[in-house]
Amino acid sequence: METAVVLLSGGLDSATVLAIARAEGYLCHCLSVDYGQRHVAELAAAQRVAAALGAAEHRTIRIEIGQFGGSALTDSDIAVPTNGIGEGIPVTYVPARNTIMLSLALAWAEVLGAGDIFVGVNAVDYSGYPDCRPEYIGAFENMANLATKAAVEGRRLRIHTPLIQSSKAEIIRRGTTLGVDYGLTVSCYQADTDGRACGVCDSCRLRQAGFESAAITDPTRYYSAA
Amino acid sequence: METAVVLLSGGLDSATVLAIARAEGYLCHCLSVDYGQRHVAELAAAQRVAAALGAAEHRTIRIEIGQFGGSALTDSDIAVPTNGIGEGIPVTYVPARNTIMLSLALAWAEVLGAGDIFVGVNAVDYSGYPDCRPEYIGAFENMANLATKAAVEGRRLRIHTPLIQSSKAEIIRRGTTLGVDYGLTVSCYQADTDGRACGVCDSCRLRQAGFESAAITDPTRYYSAA
Repeated sequence: METAVVLLSGGLDSATVLAIARAEGYLCHCLSVDYGQRHVAELAAAQRVAAALGAAEHRTIRIEIGQFGGSALTDSDIAVPTNGIGEGIPVTYVPARNTIMLSLALAWAEVLGAGDIFVGVNAVDYSGYPDCRPEYIGAFENMANLATKAAVEGRRLRIHTPLIQSSKAEIIRRGTTLGVDYGLTVSCYQADTDGRACGVCDSCRLRQAGFESAAITDPTRYYSAA
Repeated sequence: METAVVLLSGGLDSATVLAIARAEGYLCHCLSVDYGQRHVAELAAAQRVAAALGAAEHRTIRIEIGQFGGSALTDSDIAVPTNGIGEGIPVTYVPARNTIMLSLALAWAEVLGAGDIFVGVNAVDYSGYPDCRPEYIGAFENMANLATKAAVEGRRLRIHTPLIQSSKAEIIRRGTTLGVDYGLTVSCYQADTDGRACGVCDSCRLRQAGFESAAITDPTRYYSAA
């Protein structure tokens, strides 16, 4: 059984990625990153998802990138947009987030002797995030294969992004087939401590539209009337 | 005045890098990473060095990569070698350390609007560390220029490694010319809380040999008889 590190946010995409990695036969060590995000309910969700999908282990690593500011997800002075998805890079973009999270996954993979990292980035719905693009992932993989002791010893590391070209509806259909209980996941950028969602942030809107388009019942619990 | 992020460990190399960045006219925001290393005296040294060399700001970010284990610098079950420098990658190598630290610098640079990151990696004395090689730094820079909002908007980020091909003696001579007080710095992998050095770990040996070869008086304080 091959060992993999799976980045698990507690959201819909990464839960699906974990189910895919498990279905491909990987022993999955799941890593969540507490980076000072507003939506801490995600981290509790990650723990539930890891247990439900048979992860070998789940760890949360805390890192205060919120102290740098610059994102609505870590800086309470910047409002989370709720008026619909706009053009360009949204204020919910967290500077270098995927680079930091993949770097942490790389460190753990090296210690575990794992040659595979799974991450739920998606270039379709989140085309506004520069670090969700295939060319970025390719460049990270190239860098990672020069960075480590494993690389020097000739063992290749692969970054798996099974959802990178999928629509939200396709992701939901695939995860449902694999038995993912999306009621355990939290996507909302401003979920309450119980994991209930606002229904109006970009992430809620994409999720709602995904369930609708997939014609699958949306198990999300909302605290607003949205 | 251009703004730069300077990774500052508190050791000899990064102090020299800060002096170089200052001499090149950069406004320097210094970042230290508390990654659970044994040698916490380095972090106190970093603060002194930043102040002495006129940094605009100094921040320390804490991140518990030590929980992954796998290095003598973060895992107290692995002894720091003291019998001289061996072949291959030493046990003091910290998995993905430079990747994690550069990623954090990248995040801060993006928030600051800085296009320059300085780091004191050195491929000569530390040829055993994979993430100190020029090809690794080039790959990181390439990745970083796909990762960020700034990159999407066409602003290039540069990773400066002014010491990458220098010997320890050359570094010490260069820093001395620029007014670095190496008495403020701590290089030892197992320094005591006062910042005094063991004199026998690889880092102490390289530093001692550097001062000797540069024919500059070594201001290091030792706690052993070495």
